[in-house]
Amino acid sequence: MRLRNVKNKEEILSNNPYFIADGTSYFGKWSEVFGNTNPIYIEIGMGKGKFIIENALKYPDINFIGIEKYDSILAKAVTKIPEGINNLKILRLDALNIDQVFYKEIDRIYLNFSDPWPKKRHNLRRLSSKVFLEKYDDIFKDTCNIFMRTDNRDLYIYSLESFSNYGYKLNDISFDLHSTEENLITTEYEDKFTKLGNPIYSVVAIKDKS
Amino acid sequence: MRLRNVKNKEEILSNNPYFIADGTSYFGKWSEVFGNTNPIYIEIGMGKGKFIIENALKYPDINFIGIEKYDSILAKAVTKIPEGINNLKILRLDALNIDQVFYKEIDRIYLNFSDPWPKKRHNLRRLSSKVFLEKYDDIFKDTCNIFMRTDNRDLYIYSLESFSNYGYKLNDISFDLHSTEENLITTEYEDKFTKLGNPIYSVVAIKDKS
Repeated sequence: MRLRNVKNKEEILSNNPYFIADGTSYFGKWSEVFGNTNPIYIEIGMGKGKFIIENALKYPDINFIGIEKYDSILAKAVTKIPEGINNLKILRLDALNIDQVFYKEIDRIYLNFSDPWPKKRHNLRRLSSKVFLEKYDDIFKDTCNIFMRTDNRDLYIYSLESFSNYGYKLNDISFDLHSTEENLITTEYEDKFTKLGNPIYSVVAIKDKS
Repeated sequence: MRLRNVKNKEEILSNNPYFIADGTSYFGKWSEVFGNTNPIYIEIGMGKGKFIIENALKYPDINFIGIEKYDSILAKAVTKIPEGINNLKILRLDALNIDQVFYKEIDRIYLNFSDPWPKKRHNLRRLSSKVFLEKYDDIFKDTCNIFMRTDNRDLYIYSLESFSNYGYKLNDISFDLHSTEENLITTEYEDKFTKLGNPIYSVVAIKDKS
């Protein structure tokens, strides 16, 4: 997403109860952070946070963690969270280090409108590339569950191939998610995009732990 | 495809050197039919035969078998084949019996514009359903290779899910095959359809023999 500087971002983040600047000390122990053993769902690249915040409000028995790399985006997201939510954390993290922060404890990964990295030589930077699928293997608790949405056809096709070649089974494929599903929790980007009448591609990729 | 009766179909077929009315006697022995050990590619539901005939002409070192159920269609196809082609046979067969006719000897299956069987309760009649994938397991020689094209989005999505859930890896996915590929050998139906500007979906599904 487009990055606009937020001037007092450090101050916003350091004072926010939802924000975690460094997750490495919770490696394998995120249940302790939440104080319960409920399932943990993470969104890698949560943007301004609408999707993960609304999920946390709707599903109190699931623990949610929104992940972003940039402080300006993180600062925007945390300010939107109502007070008193016990099942949501916002984590600063470069996804490349995701296996330094989680260990056999994640039940679901959301990849919503991830950076398509359109140049072929950058394909391993895509969050659905083999590089990341290998890391995800280490962080999933039991079954590997990836819920993906994108408006980018090339990224979508790449991801279907990448998932299936890594041993994932593909389910709930849709080339126009909003034409059949109602009452979806959406991202900010998704709302903008679907208003233009453009289709959203989606898939649920599932794999047994290897 | 639409079925129009061909009046003298029995006569046409019985006199045609490419036509095989009953393949069961060649079970496991199709190399003998062709007199060589070249790879064997089959097209299940070859329609009027354009695709398989053009392939046979272009690739003389591959053996091709076009499969259809209905005599009227078979009769139309065989009359189109030039004389003296040694690497092509046309076989009358209901695909449900395909494992009675071939055994560990097929290198590639083409599924071109298969009947979509749009009603959900008919989904096991689709040539990419588990019912057929189980039969294909028995007829493939080494690796299972299915090359699929369709204009039907629902059949396509169903097939991607069915292939991947059966253990196939998905490759060369395209949502608009003709926008990127030139000099393709096409079916009659495909030509009609692409002239209208409609996209062709395609995928190559690959699986090790289980």
